[in-house]
Amino acid sequence: MTDVTDWGTAPAAGIAEAVAAGHVAARTVTAAALERIARLDGRVNAFTDVLAERALARADTIDAARARGAALGALAGVPFAVKNLFDVAGLPTRAGARINRERAPATRDAALIARLEAAGAVLVGALNMGEYAYDFTGENVHDGASRNPHDLGHMSGGSSGGSGGALAAGLVPLALASDTNGSIRVPSAFCGCFGLKPTYGRLSRAGTFPFVGSLDHLGPMARSARDLALAYDAMQGPDAADPVCTARAPDPVAPRLGEGVSGLRIAVAGGYFARGGEADAFEAVARLAQALGVTRTVEIPEAARARAAAYLITAAEGAALHLDRLRSRAQDFDPAVRDRLLAGAMLPAPFVERAQRFRRWYRAAVLALFEEVDVILAPSTPCRAPRSGQTTFVLDGVEWPVRPNIGLFTQPISFIGLPVAAVPVRLDDGLPLGVQVIAAPWREDVALRVAHHLEREGLSRAPVAVLA
Amino acid sequence: MTDVTDWGTAPAAGIAEAVAAGHVAARTVTAAALERIARLDGRVNAFTDVLAERALARADTIDAARARGAALGALAGVPFAVKNLFDVAGLPTRAGARINRERAPATRDAALIARLEAAGAVLVGALNMGEYAYDFTGENVHDGASRNPHDLGHMSGGSSGGSGGALAAGLVPLALASDTNGSIRVPSAFCGCFGLKPTYGRLSRAGTFPFVGSLDHLGPMARSARDLALAYDAMQGPDAADPVCTARAPDPVAPRLGEGVSGLRIAVAGGYFARGGEADAFEAVARLAQALGVTRTVEIPEAARARAAAYLITAAEGAALHLDRLRSRAQDFDPAVRDRLLAGAMLPAPFVERAQRFRRWYRAAVLALFEEVDVILAPSTPCRAPRSGQTTFVLDGVEWPVRPNIGLFTQPISFIGLPVAAVPVRLDDGLPLGVQVIAAPWREDVALRVAHHLEREGLSRAPVAVLA
Repeated sequence: MTDVTDWGTAPAAGIAEAVAAGHVAARTVTAAALERIARLDGRVNAFTDVLAERALARADTIDAARARGAALGALAGVPFAVKNLFDVAGLPTRAGARINRERAPATRDAALIARLEAAGAVLVGALNMGEYAYDFTGENVHDGASRNPHDLGHMSGGSSGGSGGALAAGLVPLALASDTNGSIRVPSAFCGCFGLKPTYGRLSRAGTFPFVGSLDHLGPMARSARDLALAYDAMQGPDAADPVCTARAPDPVAPRLGEGVSGLRIAVAGGYFARGGEADAFEAVARLAQALGVTRTVEIPEAARARAAAYLITAAEGAALHLDRLRSRAQDFDPAVRDRLLAGAMLPAPFVERAQRFRRWYRAAVLALFEEVDVILAPSTPCRAPRSGQTTFVLDGVEWPVRPNIGLFTQPISFIGLPVAAVPVRLDDGLPLGVQVIAAPWREDVALRVAHHLEREGLSRAPVAVLA
Repeated sequence: MTDVTDWGTAPAAGIAEAVAAGHVAARTVTAAALERIARLDGRVNAFTDVLAERALARADTIDAARARGAALGALAGVPFAVKNLFDVAGLPTRAGARINRERAPATRDAALIARLEAAGAVLVGALNMGEYAYDFTGENVHDGASRNPHDLGHMSGGSSGGSGGALAAGLVPLALASDTNGSIRVPSAFCGCFGLKPTYGRLSRAGTFPFVGSLDHLGPMARSARDLALAYDAMQGPDAADPVCTARAPDPVAPRLGEGVSGLRIAVAGGYFARGGEADAFEAVARLAQALGVTRTVEIPEAARARAAAYLITAAEGAALHLDRLRSRAQDFDPAVRDRLLAGAMLPAPFVERAQRFRRWYRAAVLALFEEVDVILAPSTPCRAPRSGQTTFVLDGVEWPVRPNIGLFTQPISFIGLPVAAVPVRLDDGLPLGVQVIAAPWREDVALRVAHHLEREGLSRAPVAVLA
């Protein structure tokens, strides 16, 4: 525990314990993270901004607090980074967009950054992402693609590609990201990390650049379920600055993480979620199901329609957000993102209204399933990470465009705001896969307990990639 | 109290008292109503369906209950009729549409009909309305225009034109109607009745044909504030069959109606609500304000934008509802309604999304006003009832199309679901005018108390029209 490079890849829980116990200085850990970023990020391209000065000053504050005997938070000295749609005081909030670089620097940090730092974490930088989060690949025409540390020629997954890349490369033990249609769960799968997409409305979105108000979720990504839980606990609680995040009192999960899974009614999602992907994606689910003793299958009704409806609402709400920029700055968008937004700008309103009506029906139908089961398992993506620049893939014998189809299995779940722990699975020495552990609304605790159990049993793990 | 024709035009409160006391049989009152309908409705064209057999049987039930000493409800023996978008067992729910006449007959009555009948009221028929409630005139190409009993050559106001006409002609003392953008308040003004558009979500919409889910309200119309309150009290309370109407326990108003207005902070709506109409419309408001000792004016912010947003949402949600019928039965719509719905079908979704966003801002801004005042007075319409078939009018020196501009002052209020008591005002011997008594959400009691006070002071009244 004394080698600096070890601290660079240590888990958050281990760092916080060691810092609290005085086994290592927060400055040492932060310096190790900054050193790894400086040495490795040129290949991964996860970071768009590194905040060395701020991070070291913050680490010193924590070391000083420890020196005078003050209590340290649950994340004392833990370096973390955030998708660049979080406000960071002093930086323009890029949201992956060239246009946004012209924004005035944020005057304060996003609410979730403030909460993590209040628990002792140390912000070290901001992370690459797909433009305006309208992306499943992790590619960005302005900042360059964020690469998959497990194979630099492959996609990191989007839109939180930098978050996945930074974790898999061991640059930080913790990252914040957003998930509208899969943007936490897809890079978690492709980069082999753990990710938590909480219930819609659970974590404050104050101080972040939005995409689709009715679908946007923020959450943590990490290399262990425990680290997810520690970060999640530190960020919970209502926030008057976010009108969607007002009702729920904090419900700490980390202390209960080890309760195991006995008594939980777990099922595998059948039908839609058991076809249309590569065999490996379903094999990953089956392997976890077998280990958990799951025999039950449930059918999430009308999932294909739910995905279609999520598409319509995403395009329309996204276009509404960007309408003025589309009118005045169309040439400065990523052309592919611009085309999606322009299509959304011309969507007839009654189609979207019908999608919203269907959504109410679908929510009720899926919630009814949770009277019978506590957890539903489904693949995170239909395949492992495609190669960078790959434009089509073959699923079930049909050639599809890659970009819009990566979210096949994530979109029907976020559409109604269910909490999901995305867990990484390694079937072999190849690229990782991901499985969604889906729970009923507000039951992040259940999803995280299952994730932790799978990790403890050796079925899910998130090793740091070896970057030669 | 013995002349049959008197019972035909008596107020609901008086009928219920007399029936309960045994001064008159429910059958006598019902027969009187049926007789007036048979004699006069040919000129008014308020009724599309008369349910003589059902009504007399129901009246007999009440008389039998009284004969055996059973307690009678607050509306014992009171005849009422409903806009033909309410389900009536055995009738297809027309909603003013030719297409809807092909529907299967409803198998049960709408929730509000059942509640009124549970209080002893007697349904006598269904009332003419603008097609699919997308109307401010009271004209219907399939059923003919419902006429204004105060001058048969003038509009009754829409879309609840039959409700206004039936009340002003003294055919019933009580009617149910719906108000999406003004459809209770406009005919109340043109026909000189009292109308209550309750808070959005207050009264169950179960068993009615919708128009715009996020704007549709149901409510009573009558010839006195007390009758409104009696009907409103009988209909309050959550209904599991209407997901929007679940939260509010009943809050009976009739017992408190006489509490007066002292202590209420009343203001007149200025700015947008004080221009763009005929002088008489503002004079009606000023007369009430003066009598109430009101000196304060408040500005409802961005009311013009609120009306525009209400238009967009109405067109889009309305088109979403009718999309299949527009595709398959376009030729069977009222051509003017069809054109509005087709325009809505092609509205770009982001415009509507922006309207919804504005709506959230506007709601908060207007609710803030209610920290300073309890009641806001505004005109119901910009003018008295136009002539039937009139297509333009001149407001503030500008010629406008009549149909879309009648709701100038009602749309910005219903847009955020505020409760309104519409009170009739007679400045002279001409056609009546209407004033909106607007209260904070869930404060129907306040609006009705003001309406009752104005009536008691002789400032607001709803006489039965003399039909030669």
